[in-house]
Amino acid sequence: MRILGIDPGYAILGWGVIDMAGNAFHAVDYGAVTTEAGTPMPRRLQHLYRELMHIIDVYHPQAASIEELFFNNNAKTAIHVGQARGVAVLACVNHDLPIGEYTPLQIKQALVGYGRAEKKQVQLMVKAILGLSEIPKPDDTADALAAAVCHGHAAAAPQKDLTHRIRKGI
Amino acid sequence: MRILGIDPGYAILGWGVIDMAGNAFHAVDYGAVTTEAGTPMPRRLQHLYRELMHIIDVYHPQAASIEELFFNNNAKTAIHVGQARGVAVLACVNHDLPIGEYTPLQIKQALVGYGRAEKKQVQLMVKAILGLSEIPKPDDTADALAAAVCHGHAAAAPQKDLTHRIRKGI
Repeated sequence: MRILGIDPGYAILGWGVIDMAGNAFHAVDYGAVTTEAGTPMPRRLQHLYRELMHIIDVYHPQAASIEELFFNNNAKTAIHVGQARGVAVLACVNHDLPIGEYTPLQIKQALVGYGRAEKKQVQLMVKAILGLSEIPKPDDTADALAAAVCHGHAAAAPQKDLTHRIRKGI
Repeated sequence: MRILGIDPGYAILGWGVIDMAGNAFHAVDYGAVTTEAGTPMPRRLQHLYRELMHIIDVYHPQAASIEELFFNNNAKTAIHVGQARGVAVLACVNHDLPIGEYTPLQIKQALVGYGRAEKKQVQLMVKAILGLSEIPKPDDTADALAAAVCHGHAAAAPQKDLTHRIRKGI
């Protein structure tokens, strides 16, 4: 199964495409879509949408995995990042991709086995699981790959807790 | 000038198309796009996007006016409404519409001349300015028409305060 992981953001949107065969994961490609500060938000959203549409067209993932957003106290940031997440979700659903949505805690749990793991631990697991020579940069890209691996685990282990969420998005 | 006003939301998205000729406003059509609770968010966002794309295709507005979102303390709601606003902005920018963005205070100021006006006063002004026989329902539709009128005022009166925001969105 080929999975597109997305870490939504309006300045930096991390993405990663992985293949899963049995318990083995392989990174197909990964990167980040960036938009410049000062560019009007509609243009930034359009750029994110177009780039994601292009990535889906190029790599033909069979599923998408998008990190859920949490903000405790900054509703203004939440609105902005929410807008970016909205166009990312739209790009996936407009390609008929089933969408898995996972909280940061679920992603850490899936990769490290511990929901309160440090970011660095998650990144090291991403590197190890995908057999990469170094931790992908920026952090958003590593997070996107982590989301993709999390979805792969959930899809591969239907008896586990996570799986009730796999098809939640679609 | 034909203006599409949008009041973003994921359960109810209000919209209204108005024509402005000189100081005269005319309502072309208006309504609300709704999505059902319990429907997965990706499908709700896709429905909002498709319906807005269709409305723009049918009415060919030359500009869009979208209310800005404010949430003081509910970041979760802010993320959800932010996602809906994101796909609404995307529908407009994907049609190359210039986008005006106005705060609720600016819209009230433009319609009633008083930024702290009651919702009912704004609705009565929408009805009067557009020569309607009754206040459009739901509130989201009236708000969308108010946003459209606000943009018309801003476009017609370049010396006024509001106008520095007209092209902000694009």
